Amino acid sequence: MGNIELQLVKYAKVVDHFILERLSGSPENLYKAALHLVKAGGKRLRPAIAMLIARMLDGIEGEARAIPLAAAIETSHTFTLIHDDIMDRDDFRRGVPTVHKTWGESWAILAGDLLHAYSYNFIVSSVEYGLTKSEAHEAMRILTTAGIKVSRGQAYDLLFEKTWDVSVVDYLDMVFHKTGAMMEASAKLGALAGKAGADVIELMGQYGSFLGVAFQIRDDYLGVFGDPAKTGKPIYGDLRRGKKTLIVIYAVNSLKGGDRDFLVRILDPNVEKDEESLARAAELIRKSGAEKEALNLARIYADRAKEIVGRLKNVADEEAREALIVLADYAVERER
Amino acid sequence: MGNIELQLVKYAKVVDHFILERLSGSPENLYKAALHLVKAGGKRLRPAIAMLIARMLDGIEGEARAIPLAAAIETSHTFTLIHDDIMDRDDFRRGVPTVHKTWGESWAILAGDLLHAYSYNFIVSSVEYGLTKSEAHEAMRILTTAGIKVSRGQAYDLLFEKTWDVSVVDYLDMVFHKTGAMMEASAKLGALAGKAGADVIELMGQYGSFLGVAFQIRDDYLGVFGDPAKTGKPIYGDLRRGKKTLIVIYAVNSLKGGDRDFLVRILDPNVEKDEESLARAAELIRKSGAEKEALNLARIYADRAKEIVGRLKNVADEEAREALIVLADYAVERER
Repeated sequence: MGNIELQLVKYAKVVDHFILERLSGSPENLYKAALHLVKAGGKRLRPAIAMLIARMLDGIEGEARAIPLAAAIETSHTFTLIHDDIMDRDDFRRGVPTVHKTWGESWAILAGDLLHAYSYNFIVSSVEYGLTKSEAHEAMRILTTAGIKVSRGQAYDLLFEKTWDVSVVDYLDMVFHKTGAMMEASAKLGALAGKAGADVIELMGQYGSFLGVAFQIRDDYLGVFGDPAKTGKPIYGDLRRGKKTLIVIYAVNSLKGGDRDFLVRILDPNVEKDEESLARAAELIRKSGAEKEALNLARIYADRAKEIVGRLKNVADEEAREALIVLADYAVERER
Repeated sequence: MGNIELQLVKYAKVVDHFILERLSGSPENLYKAALHLVKAGGKRLRPAIAMLIARMLDGIEGEARAIPLAAAIETSHTFTLIHDDIMDRDDFRRGVPTVHKTWGESWAILAGDLLHAYSYNFIVSSVEYGLTKSEAHEAMRILTTAGIKVSRGQAYDLLFEKTWDVSVVDYLDMVFHKTGAMMEASAKLGALAGKAGADVIELMGQYGSFLGVAFQIRDDYLGVFGDPAKTGKPIYGDLRRGKKTLIVIYAVNSLKGGDRDFLVRILDPNVEKDEESLARAAELIRKSGAEKEALNLARIYADRAKEIVGRLKNVADEEAREALIVLADYAVERER
């Protein structure tokens, strides 16, 4: 696990350098707001997926070609975080106050829009890094497809806050859009930079998509049981907002009587709740077996991702393949 | 003037058809929110610029190639309207309640983000309409450049609300970004669809940019002196929010003593104001000569746009050239 975190840091440096180099301009406040979360850190999992896949398929040349694509994905991801934090009324992210908390909502909307435009601009730059215009066109198609899916996934997430009519299948469909789509795009862009054919691009997309869903289920788990000092997010945030996460759906399905009623009431976003009742809700979720069930499903998706990368023939770099396998484990074992 | 409005309607139909055909999906509410302002009408000036320039340069084949690019521009423009309305707390647009007033802020942010992603997706589609991948790449560069400028222009607009340190030059720079950049992109994309070389693309960009600034100055004028039944916007909206529009800057520069103090106080966004004092502020602006001065400057920019199109050699369609000249007049004479 320590090793893969070092890999992430290595790629983070390369991608951050690209982003910081190009994301400057006036007015200063706008660019400060846009770079706020970039500078606050983050795991840079999405760029790492792109760059590792490019390296696995075409060595260090592939890796170098992936830089602007990895930067585009991270920039697009950051834009969605800024806007999601406004919608979710979140005050903290990556251990720092969110963009709208620091600069106000208008600036957060604009900073997100600016990053969104830059993410496509970075795809345009990919021809400077060795992609053909035809490949850049394909890269654009991959990113716009993901962008549309992410908006739709977030819309489902908002809708689910207001209803109990959410099945495990509904949840998974939402997560395949909200989180899976951007990781799928990361993986496809990495494969494109690695000069892969359409079939391998598609296969790598599946790796990214499965890893994304596994990652999100772990995220939901950390949202209830994680250590805020490690996650950088306030404790019980998802419970407060009544998010229909997988552990919550499992728990409500298996709890009975007063326990179930208590959890359902806590998850009503309109009900005032104190720390103590949130802690009791978390305890009920643990008691229900939902925690274990959710982590099992995350493990299944992570294993599918590992299997896809494991069975690939003729890879250029075995170390990168190994790192992609460890990355899938990291997605479901991480504490932050 | 009637004739050019008919032209706009003709192009609106083609572009709206393209947009409505492709902008469908789930959840339904998200797509409804995204299409709300598209369905509410609008002048479709930006698509018309693209399509007329394409026709002028390469006849009906050029015009057909411009369709997805024109749709991309209109979609991108609509996304900025939805987000700007949130920032400006505007309740009405195109004669209907704004998106955030109808669906709430979260959905308005998301609907804008969805349209933003689709606008780039439409550029990707341009290869289905006869653009080469290399041209599609150039189109992407044009749109991302404009997207970045528009965010920056809107940021300046927000900053200017809080200060009186705004010169005419500052205002023009803001407007070249906020409004000029997207019209510049419309014109460049039209030229690209018309198979123009780099120099003509650049020249057409200037046409769009000048027309955009002229259009915005007229917009500022209509914001104070326009008929709400025609503009579809509430009366005195810009004055209420303390927008530093050109007429306001001119008026504050030329008024003296109590009149100046009164106008400055009215333009403080934190000061409560009634209809009567807003009407008095409008009257002071008229009395100061600012109205005439602003419209003169708009006319100068419109004339520069006309001159650029007028002196172009070897155009394929003289009628389209004529329409582009009339369009520049329309930008500064329109009542809605």
